[in-house]
Amino acid sequence: MKIYPANLDHRSSHQLQASTVVPRPIAFVSTISEDGTFNLAPFSTFAGISVEPPIVCFSVVWRRDGQKKDTLKNIEFSRDFVINVVNETLAQAMNQTSASYRSSVDEFKEVGLTPVKSDIVKAPRVAESPVNMECKLRQILEFGKSPGGSNLIIGEVVLVHLGDELVIDGQIQMSRLKAIGRLGGDSYCRTTETFEMKRPD
Amino acid sequence: MKIYPANLDHRSSHQLQASTVVPRPIAFVSTISEDGTFNLAPFSTFAGISVEPPIVCFSVVWRRDGQKKDTLKNIEFSRDFVINVVNETLAQAMNQTSASYRSSVDEFKEVGLTPVKSDIVKAPRVAESPVNMECKLRQILEFGKSPGGSNLIIGEVVLVHLGDELVIDGQIQMSRLKAIGRLGGDSYCRTTETFEMKRPD
Repeated sequence: MKIYPANLDHRSSHQLQASTVVPRPIAFVSTISEDGTFNLAPFSTFAGISVEPPIVCFSVVWRRDGQKKDTLKNIEFSRDFVINVVNETLAQAMNQTSASYRSSVDEFKEVGLTPVKSDIVKAPRVAESPVNMECKLRQILEFGKSPGGSNLIIGEVVLVHLGDELVIDGQIQMSRLKAIGRLGGDSYCRTTETFEMKRPD
Repeated sequence: MKIYPANLDHRSSHQLQASTVVPRPIAFVSTISEDGTFNLAPFSTFAGISVEPPIVCFSVVWRRDGQKKDTLKNIEFSRDFVINVVNETLAQAMNQTSASYRSSVDEFKEVGLTPVKSDIVKAPRVAESPVNMECKLRQILEFGKSPGGSNLIIGEVVLVHLGDELVIDGQIQMSRLKAIGRLGGDSYCRTTETFEMKRPD
C-alpha cells in the first residue's frame, strides 16, 4: 500500500514513523532548569551523527498546548544536557518519566533515581545508568509549527562515564550493557538476541 | 571509567559511539547518480526527527581519502533518496553493500536486489524491502573536517510504500516486519524478542 504521510493526522504520522524506524536507541535525557529543578525524560529520536567531533542529536516534539517541553526549555537555559543509556533494569523508571509532570516536579525523586553532579556540564547525570554522556549544546533546528512540530537538539559529547563492568579486553559488551530499544506501539526490544555479520573489505 | 571522546582517534571514537548508542535502526539508502547509476548503502546513523512534517535524517561519514561517498554525491545531485527498511531476509545483502565499490558499480546488481522506479523521487527503491520511504532533501549539515567529519542529511518523507502483509487492524506488526538493528562491533539484534510497557498518563 502507499501512504502519503503529509495527509495523515499527527497521531497516525507518529505511529507510521514509530513502527518503521525501528529499533530506536533511547536517550534518557537529564537537564537542569533555571531555578535548579532537575528534569528527566526519554526520547527515542536519538542518533549519533558524527564521531570526529563526537556529535549526537535527538528531537523533542512540542506540547499540544503549544508550550515547550521542560527538556527543551532547560537546554536553552543551561546550553547542556546528559544522555543516559537505558538498560533493562532502568526500563520501568524510564517509562514512568514519560508521564506529563509539571515543570516544578523533579522526575529523579518521582521515580526514585539518583542525580549525580556532572564533571563538565550543569545538567546532572543518572547514577543508576550504565553510560552517561555529558553533552554541550551546539545547535537547535526547528521543524513544522506548534502543536505538531519539533526541535532537533544537536550536542557534542564532551565526557562519557562508562561502568567498568561493561568492558572486557577494551570492548563494550552488548551482553553486559543490556540496552533496550524502542519499537512501534507500546513495544520495546532487548539487545541480547544478537547475530554477527563481518563487514566485507 | 571516564572517557573524553575528543581525545580518542577516529576508530576508537566510532567504537565508543557505536557500542553505546544502541540498538540503531538501519537506513538502507538507494540513490541515483548524475550519469544514471544506482547506488545502495546502509547507514545506522538514522532517526525520525519530526512527524508533522514527516522528517528523517541520517549521517554519512567522509571517505578516508577526503572524497565524498556516492550516497552524498548522488543526493546533492538529485536532491532526493529512498530509505529502505532492512529485515532479517535482507540482512546479508545489506551487509554486502557496505563494501567499498567504485562509483560506476551498481550495488543492486552486485548483491542481487531489484531496483523499482519510485513514484515521486528520482532515486529507485528496493523491491525486496518491506518498507520504502521516498524522501526529498531539505538540508545538509556538516560536522568536522575531512577525513574524520561527516554530513547530516535531512529529508522529508513524501511517500511510504508498505507491504500489505505487515498490517493487521491498521497496525504495523513488529513480528511481521522483522527489522534488524545495529549494535557495536559486528553485532546486530532482532526485533522479535519484545516486551510491552504502557505509557503512563
